[in-house]
Amino acid sequence: MIRFYNGKVLTMDGSMDLTDQEVWTLKDKIFYVGPAREDAPVFDREVDLRGDMLIPGFKNAHAHSAMTFLRSYADDLPLQSWLFDKVFPLEARLTPDDVYALTKLAILEYLAGGITSAFDMYYKREAFVEASLECGFRMVLNGALAAGDDWTVGESDCEKFNAMGPLISYIPGIHAEYTASTDLLAFMKGLVDRTKKPFFTHNSETKKEVEECIARHGMTPTALFDKSGLLEHGGGGFHCVWLTWEDMEIFRKRGLWAVSCPASNSKLASGVAPIAEMQRRGVKLALGTDGPASNNALNMFREMYLECVLQKLREEDAAVCDASEVLRMACSNGAMAMGLDAECIRAGKLADLVVIDMHQPNMRPIHNPVKNLVYSGSNANVRLTMVGGKILYEDGVFHVGESAETIYERAEAATRRLTRE
Amino acid sequence: MIRFYNGKVLTMDGSMDLTDQEVWTLKDKIFYVGPAREDAPVFDREVDLRGDMLIPGFKNAHAHSAMTFLRSYADDLPLQSWLFDKVFPLEARLTPDDVYALTKLAILEYLAGGITSAFDMYYKREAFVEASLECGFRMVLNGALAAGDDWTVGESDCEKFNAMGPLISYIPGIHAEYTASTDLLAFMKGLVDRTKKPFFTHNSETKKEVEECIARHGMTPTALFDKSGLLEHGGGGFHCVWLTWEDMEIFRKRGLWAVSCPASNSKLASGVAPIAEMQRRGVKLALGTDGPASNNALNMFREMYLECVLQKLREEDAAVCDASEVLRMACSNGAMAMGLDAECIRAGKLADLVVIDMHQPNMRPIHNPVKNLVYSGSNANVRLTMVGGKILYEDGVFHVGESAETIYERAEAATRRLTRE
Repeated sequence: MIRFYNGKVLTMDGSMDLTDQEVWTLKDKIFYVGPAREDAPVFDREVDLRGDMLIPGFKNAHAHSAMTFLRSYADDLPLQSWLFDKVFPLEARLTPDDVYALTKLAILEYLAGGITSAFDMYYKREAFVEASLECGFRMVLNGALAAGDDWTVGESDCEKFNAMGPLISYIPGIHAEYTASTDLLAFMKGLVDRTKKPFFTHNSETKKEVEECIARHGMTPTALFDKSGLLEHGGGGFHCVWLTWEDMEIFRKRGLWAVSCPASNSKLASGVAPIAEMQRRGVKLALGTDGPASNNALNMFREMYLECVLQKLREEDAAVCDASEVLRMACSNGAMAMGLDAECIRAGKLADLVVIDMHQPNMRPIHNPVKNLVYSGSNANVRLTMVGGKILYEDGVFHVGESAETIYERAEAATRRLTRE
Repeated sequence: MIRFYNGKVLTMDGSMDLTDQEVWTLKDKIFYVGPAREDAPVFDREVDLRGDMLIPGFKNAHAHSAMTFLRSYADDLPLQSWLFDKVFPLEARLTPDDVYALTKLAILEYLAGGITSAFDMYYKREAFVEASLECGFRMVLNGALAAGDDWTVGESDCEKFNAMGPLISYIPGIHAEYTASTDLLAFMKGLVDRTKKPFFTHNSETKKEVEECIARHGMTPTALFDKSGLLEHGGGGFHCVWLTWEDMEIFRKRGLWAVSCPASNSKLASGVAPIAEMQRRGVKLALGTDGPASNNALNMFREMYLECVLQKLREEDAAVCDASEVLRMACSNGAMAMGLDAECIRAGKLADLVVIDMHQPNMRPIHNPVKNLVYSGSNANVRLTMVGGKILYEDGVFHVGESAETIYERAEAATRRLTRE
């Protein structure tokens, strides 16, 4: 049993107020949240928060973790040459060993930034699951099937990965409308109906994607997925930059999650999603980094800041998109979108926790710790990251079964091989 | 004499390539840049870079450092109520002791983020100069006179602060057109003519500011300053969000510096400056954080990232505003705008240096360290900050004459007094 004491706890259980409670974890769950007790057990570890803040971990609700090998490989290029000349040719060379090595690098970055789980869409699923399990990191896989794939794997993957214990789970999905066929959509409907699972996919990331879908199907991607019966058990879309008002109404009615990726959408010049508009219309929102090829960091502090300020620019109103709502998106909503019982700090919830160092100049003065987190926080403020009750990162040191240098070297070697002319 | 060895040096002296040279500092200057030497002297300190990267420090070319007391005090509000209901009433209460305490807090944040100097515009100048000198931090003061001030102080301040040694200097200026009078502009012309100094001021931060100036004077702020003879010896403007093409031509012809503050402009919904357009037109550009009341961080990694991606959004083109140009803005151009001999790593230049930790996951793989810095770097990558040959920050510890906790407590006490109802 591990005890966190002598700090402030932002439970996000209802209110966004800070409390002076203690938090105890047992195995991979939160065991107790409340005042200090005389009858406390003997703890395996006691973490003195020294006035620091304990929060639910950040949930990265859209990622392609293994794309670390493309970080800083192809920046400042037009979108088409970035994708077709740089990204796709290199991805074609990826082996499972590469994905294993490159995912571990991403997991280190997650942990150093207080991210306790990722909703990952990538190839070679066994390899990135192995990397996650070895590190003790929590990963939700998204199906991400495309027209050329063997779809039957969707059925078996769903069963296999959902039987692997609490660190791994699987949610059906396709890569995107523009890489799907009518047959694939029909197959997905069958899978969703049989499993009663939600359905996630890239949706309306670029204007071109939506226009081409309308040309092909006479309707937007959202309308197509709805009409195809894929949204009967919920789910959502990644990016959602170019949703129409009618799309938003489908999202609202069906309780779908719009997962926003503001850094990637900005760097690729895809546009600014209508987040404030979706907030007003009651659409559920979460936040993700997308892959490191387009972002280029896996950093939820960046995403939170961008989400807020881009909305203020979009609507020419400094009052829209309140920071506390965006912090909820990053910590609580992501968990709900990903089907994780980790949206707040409460007994029985998953022990996915982060300690924020308040003894740094960017966190002072402490008028409002929530605004500090969103508007002046950075990775440098992450003191400790716990996933499933295990401390995987603390004071700059990773506890993931092997040294960070080993992981760096393996990822660099994979990258050298992949990028060799 | 201090030696940096065993790493990569981004000199920014001409090219943006990395070199394997050593760098030695003597007193407050760089003494030697070149290969390792047999005849090396006995060093006072040898910093093993272990493959890390040495760069010229970030220059924060627009700041109101002491506004730390307003961090997270008034976010997500419309601009007018932010300024008139929150900022101005509290600023009216500031004492020199407050400014001293609050500036020291900002200096810690600068150092932790690799910022080695700031171009500061604020009240109670003696107090923030005292804070800077005690910490060993480099500060360039901007006059920032307004209609209600005693202008004669402009003359004496210019003389006094420029005689205080290498850490402190002063450049004349007014707060902004909208707080100036015709008499003040005439006085400033005299001051600029007598001192042959450049002239800096807030310029075209908001659309309203430009429209009101046109209504008052029949021309934009830039045209007014030009016509008033204030730009004979160069200078520049802070923000420059709403410059017209004619304004840009004045900037280009006179070699003025447009100092961009993308985080503040975004958070206050002021707009996105036409940076890529200015690049194409040959306008000189630097980068600043503005004050922590509007940003809310003093973090040049944030500014660099935002500068790049906001231009890509503005022009709907992922290829504009290359990261290496923006890194130059942050490190080299800022020095030139501020009149500091610190724009690159070369013998004779000021020893204002930063070590970037490359042994962190967000910096791997190392395809392109410049793009890594801008697109995935964060304050967590700052390993060491040296100002004027003194190591003021290293491995999370500040060396500024007193403990960080003492500075936090003093700043918190000042903030409590200032914000008491």
